[in-house]
Amino acid sequence: MRSSVMRDLMAITARPEVISLAGGLPDTSTFPPEAFAAEMDRITRTSVAEVLQYGPTEGIDLVREQIVKVMAAEDMRIDAMDVTVTTGGQQAIDLITKVLIDPGDILICDAPTYPGALPTFLSYEADVVQIECDADGMKIDILEQTLADLAAKGRKPKFIYSVPTFQNPGGMTLSLERRRRLVALAREHEILIVEDNPYGLLRYEGESLPTLYSLDGGNYVVYLGTFSKILSAGLRIGWIVSPTPIREKVVLGKAATDLCTSTLTQDFAGHYFEKDRWREYVDDLVGIYRGRRDAMIGAMSEYFPHGSTWNKPEGGLFVWATLPDVINTEDLLAKALGKGVAFVPGTGAYVDGRGASSMRLNFSGVKEDEIIEGIRRIGTVAREQLSLYETMTSTDEMRLPPRPGPEEGER
Amino acid sequence: MRSSVMRDLMAITARPEVISLAGGLPDTSTFPPEAFAAEMDRITRTSVAEVLQYGPTEGIDLVREQIVKVMAAEDMRIDAMDVTVTTGGQQAIDLITKVLIDPGDILICDAPTYPGALPTFLSYEADVVQIECDADGMKIDILEQTLADLAAKGRKPKFIYSVPTFQNPGGMTLSLERRRRLVALAREHEILIVEDNPYGLLRYEGESLPTLYSLDGGNYVVYLGTFSKILSAGLRIGWIVSPTPIREKVVLGKAATDLCTSTLTQDFAGHYFEKDRWREYVDDLVGIYRGRRDAMIGAMSEYFPHGSTWNKPEGGLFVWATLPDVINTEDLLAKALGKGVAFVPGTGAYVDGRGASSMRLNFSGVKEDEIIEGIRRIGTVAREQLSLYETMTSTDEMRLPPRPGPEEGER
Repeated sequence: MRSSVMRDLMAITARPEVISLAGGLPDTSTFPPEAFAAEMDRITRTSVAEVLQYGPTEGIDLVREQIVKVMAAEDMRIDAMDVTVTTGGQQAIDLITKVLIDPGDILICDAPTYPGALPTFLSYEADVVQIECDADGMKIDILEQTLADLAAKGRKPKFIYSVPTFQNPGGMTLSLERRRRLVALAREHEILIVEDNPYGLLRYEGESLPTLYSLDGGNYVVYLGTFSKILSAGLRIGWIVSPTPIREKVVLGKAATDLCTSTLTQDFAGHYFEKDRWREYVDDLVGIYRGRRDAMIGAMSEYFPHGSTWNKPEGGLFVWATLPDVINTEDLLAKALGKGVAFVPGTGAYVDGRGASSMRLNFSGVKEDEIIEGIRRIGTVAREQLSLYETMTSTDEMRLPPRPGPEEGER
Repeated sequence: MRSSVMRDLMAITARPEVISLAGGLPDTSTFPPEAFAAEMDRITRTSVAEVLQYGPTEGIDLVREQIVKVMAAEDMRIDAMDVTVTTGGQQAIDLITKVLIDPGDILICDAPTYPGALPTFLSYEADVVQIECDADGMKIDILEQTLADLAAKGRKPKFIYSVPTFQNPGGMTLSLERRRRLVALAREHEILIVEDNPYGLLRYEGESLPTLYSLDGGNYVVYLGTFSKILSAGLRIGWIVSPTPIREKVVLGKAATDLCTSTLTQDFAGHYFEKDRWREYVDDLVGIYRGRRDAMIGAMSEYFPHGSTWNKPEGGLFVWATLPDVINTEDLLAKALGKGVAFVPGTGAYVDGRGASSMRLNFSGVKEDEIIEGIRRIGTVAREQLSLYETMTSTDEMRLPPRPGPEEGER
């Protein structure tokens, strides 16, 4: 049901007149066409037959080597042999779930969690347990208690899935102290962590934190990466770094699922990352997205109703906002679409109906003036709904306290 | 276990000194580089940002429209709205199985069946029932009896999977009379047929037969197609044509699996098929593959041991050969790899260990002189094994009757 709501949403937001703050789209408009042309000219001259042919299921060597380099940019040391190339980051989530989860197995994740991961987890009939987050990410005290409670019942989760850095959808980042505790807990309980890190290189301010993978060294942490946010989502290239026994299962799973990832898009990405300009391009994106984030935060301060809260993420693509309790963001979305603006309702990030007054707002895919206009429109329909509620309840003293959560901003 | 044997096989056959008759690789060496360059120049000028961006889960409209045209070339009339673009034909098999099969459900397929489909079927815990084939494809009498037996137990298969035209791995084609009966049976029992047709346009002789989809009109037949064998396997573009309720589930399944197929490769394929030269390219491939098939058949007549049988497929990529009973083709493969030649052992095409003396031989991916040399080497190790057996059993009167199956040739 959630998925079909999301699907309809995506179809509606494809209409050009709609300002979509709903997607997780990178801005590809500034990618230099000459960089594209240079790779395609090279292929035309030397390797048309190769890029049109099947490739190895685990990915072509050049791409696996470049992934080593890209991960080194976040201080991770890996071996190219441990990499499985996937058809985008979504397939990385799908394959690791396919390989690790049997029906009824417990899977732990953030609350809220990536809305696109939940249908995948549920498709393998995982028993999803969500751990509440605040401004510093997953509350490790609660995780610890949850693991103890499960252990008392003789149960053990198959893995803990988290986006610790610039989380999707919450925007918050797991603190260093919690990262250390999370890795220690995983070791203590011998539970795998699946660290999903699509946005780590998109930091707009503050100091970088070590990934869970680098803290752990790859014993209890399986790492998921993607080129979607630092090069292109249209190439569909992501990856999994995992210990050999898991990697072998992942490769078998991938062979049964799509045989291999496109050789053409791998060849393009592999040669692109061989050149140093990829860092410049990421720097350009960081500058663009920082400005868009600030435009969104500024517009929310101006247009969102009193009692709303939100955070100011240090990186990534998303702001998480919570409106006054009486507003249901699924209802609000229907009205917002009528005004030509879209967002993702918060319920999509939970398995249990929480998040009903929250929303995920994307600032990477839309220009600053459109972001401001989009936020203005959402603010307008939210205020209308609040006025309507106030009229219906005929009270002048409604109180709308901010909700606990990862929010920092307030209005 | 089967899958890991296949994986090792693929790794070994990637070595350049090995003549691989094991894969299902198209020959991409004759694809005109200028056709590749023309599309990439167009993209560079007009649409770099678009091809690097996410696309709709169901595929971009241009590709869905071209799929209508490609299917019309085999006399099928479909609506572009009924098409879901997939990441290659393998994902088409994976998604339709994911959507239709719950653990323990019965799934019927050919015996032998596509070796790459079995790990997919088994990953969703299907109860796979294989129906014996002869030179005219699936024996419909046996299917009819099987359906009756299952019905008597109150059981009904979820679907019947078949490659009716130039079957993988058997090379045979389901006769027109059997096609009609198969579709009639599906209607009578209200069971879906999943028709997988990667090779239909690669006919080297004989008259085209109507697809199951065209005989049925798309009520009980779900159709799987791919560009892998008529343009490129490296683009990873396949498709599913299905009634709306199934299509909606397929699209949700795809969103959870890889979000969308590469926008870059879709854009290339969509514009390529807009031009008429795609028919010329297929005609070129037909000429090349016909010559290779004939070279393979000729070499088998010369080099395979007495008592071997095989067929002469009218199209597609594969010959299915059965050696004398005393030869186990998994053992033979180990020896053949030592001589620098590979094939797929027949057991990979069955769930129950049948096919132990059979092999699938590919003739599309290797040049004629290499095919002949590869077949010579296989013949040599097979004869050595037979001699050894004869020595060990010390009999001069061993009889080696041909086995029942789709074979036509004999030596």
